[in-house]
Amino acid sequence: MVNPASLQRAYAGKRVLITGGLGFIGSTLAIALIRLGAEVTVIDSLIPEYGGNLQNLAGYADLIRVNISDVRDTYGISWLVQDQDILFNLAGQTSHLDSMTDPLVDLDINSRSQLTILEACRHHNPAIRIVFASTRQIYGKPNYLPVDEYHPIVPVDVNGINKLSGEMYHLLYAQVYGMRICALRLTNTYGPRMRVKDSRQTFLGIWIRQLLDNQPITIYGDGSQLRDFNYVDDVVDAFLLAAVTEDSWGQAFNLGDDQPISLVELSNLLIKLNGGGCAHKVDFPPERKAIDIGNYYANFTRFQSLTGWQPCTELEQGLARTLDYYRQHRHHYWDAVAQPMPYADPHPAK
Amino acid sequence: MVNPASLQRAYAGKRVLITGGLGFIGSTLAIALIRLGAEVTVIDSLIPEYGGNLQNLAGYADLIRVNISDVRDTYGISWLVQDQDILFNLAGQTSHLDSMTDPLVDLDINSRSQLTILEACRHHNPAIRIVFASTRQIYGKPNYLPVDEYHPIVPVDVNGINKLSGEMYHLLYAQVYGMRICALRLTNTYGPRMRVKDSRQTFLGIWIRQLLDNQPITIYGDGSQLRDFNYVDDVVDAFLLAAVTEDSWGQAFNLGDDQPISLVELSNLLIKLNGGGCAHKVDFPPERKAIDIGNYYANFTRFQSLTGWQPCTELEQGLARTLDYYRQHRHHYWDAVAQPMPYADPHPAK
Repeated sequence: MVNPASLQRAYAGKRVLITGGLGFIGSTLAIALIRLGAEVTVIDSLIPEYGGNLQNLAGYADLIRVNISDVRDTYGISWLVQDQDILFNLAGQTSHLDSMTDPLVDLDINSRSQLTILEACRHHNPAIRIVFASTRQIYGKPNYLPVDEYHPIVPVDVNGINKLSGEMYHLLYAQVYGMRICALRLTNTYGPRMRVKDSRQTFLGIWIRQLLDNQPITIYGDGSQLRDFNYVDDVVDAFLLAAVTEDSWGQAFNLGDDQPISLVELSNLLIKLNGGGCAHKVDFPPERKAIDIGNYYANFTRFQSLTGWQPCTELEQGLARTLDYYRQHRHHYWDAVAQPMPYADPHPAK
Repeated sequence: MVNPASLQRAYAGKRVLITGGLGFIGSTLAIALIRLGAEVTVIDSLIPEYGGNLQNLAGYADLIRVNISDVRDTYGISWLVQDQDILFNLAGQTSHLDSMTDPLVDLDINSRSQLTILEACRHHNPAIRIVFASTRQIYGKPNYLPVDEYHPIVPVDVNGINKLSGEMYHLLYAQVYGMRICALRLTNTYGPRMRVKDSRQTFLGIWIRQLLDNQPITIYGDGSQLRDFNYVDDVVDAFLLAAVTEDSWGQAFNLGDDQPISLVELSNLLIKLNGGGCAHKVDFPPERKAIDIGNYYANFTRFQSLTGWQPCTELEQGLARTLDYYRQHRHHYWDAVAQPMPYADPHPAK
């Protein structure tokens, strides 16, 4: 579906910046870009509660420029966006619960920093192409399924509101200043390099950890909630296509999958692939129930029509690869006490 | 329509806080509340570019507690919301153009401060009733007229995006925490005490100044754009009703008028009421054109059905009162170099 030769032509030699580039999707995208011949710089704050992990670039660290910094650092961002051809803007606070307990941090990262990034690009690099990682969370509880881009937007948590502002700033800067910017509204993305230490990035992360730790998978509610899932390589293809599709500027597009699955079915599939394990259902904690969105799956035909993109990886195949990855690398994701730092210790023990 | 006796019963002895309370609508609301027997505290930053003006409370200064502070001052707000029965949350940056040239200031006031105000109320006074002053600006360019609350929300400037976040936080806190909060989406509001020094609050302000200064009224474009106008006393009635209507919690309502008028007709009406003057049309400056919303007028039947509210003041009558006010008080609004300060000078000249 995605033509590797045309992507190679589009990206070879291009200077590409990725915010959140040590995170799950950002790092997978960085590696894909290196393979396409791009010059890649990643920005990541390595905040322990977020998705950044140096292990995510293992084997590629020498080929990628890693800049440890926070998107809230306005001056740094103003410098880093200069002379770049493309910005994949993926840095974000992803935890819905954390956005309710610490709403101002969520605002500063998901909303305020987006405005400073856009201002930096407008002033220092207005020709840059930008693809922003938005989220299905902005829709809130679906009125109908599958959810298309015309669905009403009623976020059910602070994270959804701030991600919406972040997306709207991007589309506004395309509209008012003619900048080359589009947004992808991601659904549940999964695969190697996702955060599995806890449920801050996705519930599927903690499920995988629970399974590999021989603990029961925890399902909130009756497990009948439907969700759609995209494998990370498919999402990376979507980002790569979006940045080189001129007709995308100024618009937001759903990603998604047309084969939704219930949480119970998903847990059964994981247990089967793992060759063992169990799940237990617990009542929704009230703070989670208050911001739950019920059933969700996306209509992604607008992006499909424009770019030819569609998810290619079967859920069973993607989950199997994911389990394999964490069986092999678990000590980098939850067993290890601390991450190795990228720089030599300036004060080594003698 | 609004029953004064029932409002008197609802507000007598109530402790009421108004952010932006030295501004146009906030001060008019404060005076109405004093007349209803409430104990009123107003917060205002008196930032020179915004709507606050001590003249707005002339004759009532001894009856109202004036707290000069900024809603960005988190600690002050946390203290000020305590022991209040009702919060009318009107403080905001209103200039669409300023929101494009200085988007982060607009974000901090219209979005971030709203979250700190709500967090302060949630932690220190969760039973408080809150009415938030939202804006028709969140809808962007209308797809259909009159615009109802189900119209798509596509803000055309940073101000619209940030005001939308501000509104969404309010409705979210009602939804998730059961707080008693609603929002009113205001259209063009006009009347005595509006900012007329420039067009930062509304174009109608600068028109009035131009007229009274014997200068031509400046119309951008061909003047065919339709707008609806609410007289400030009608808007104050809407706030008073909203705060005591339980079925309003968690919802946003349009205000508006069902007799829209074109800008050319409006300028002709003003010139007639003034007994002289002229208007000239100029091309839209590009930075204004980029964020212009075209024709707009609101459908306000949802709020009308719930509360019985409707605009009562004819435009001609309201404009005449407004012109009278500024003929009498112009030196407090644009002739004067500086405003008198509310406190005695601690270092008086001997």
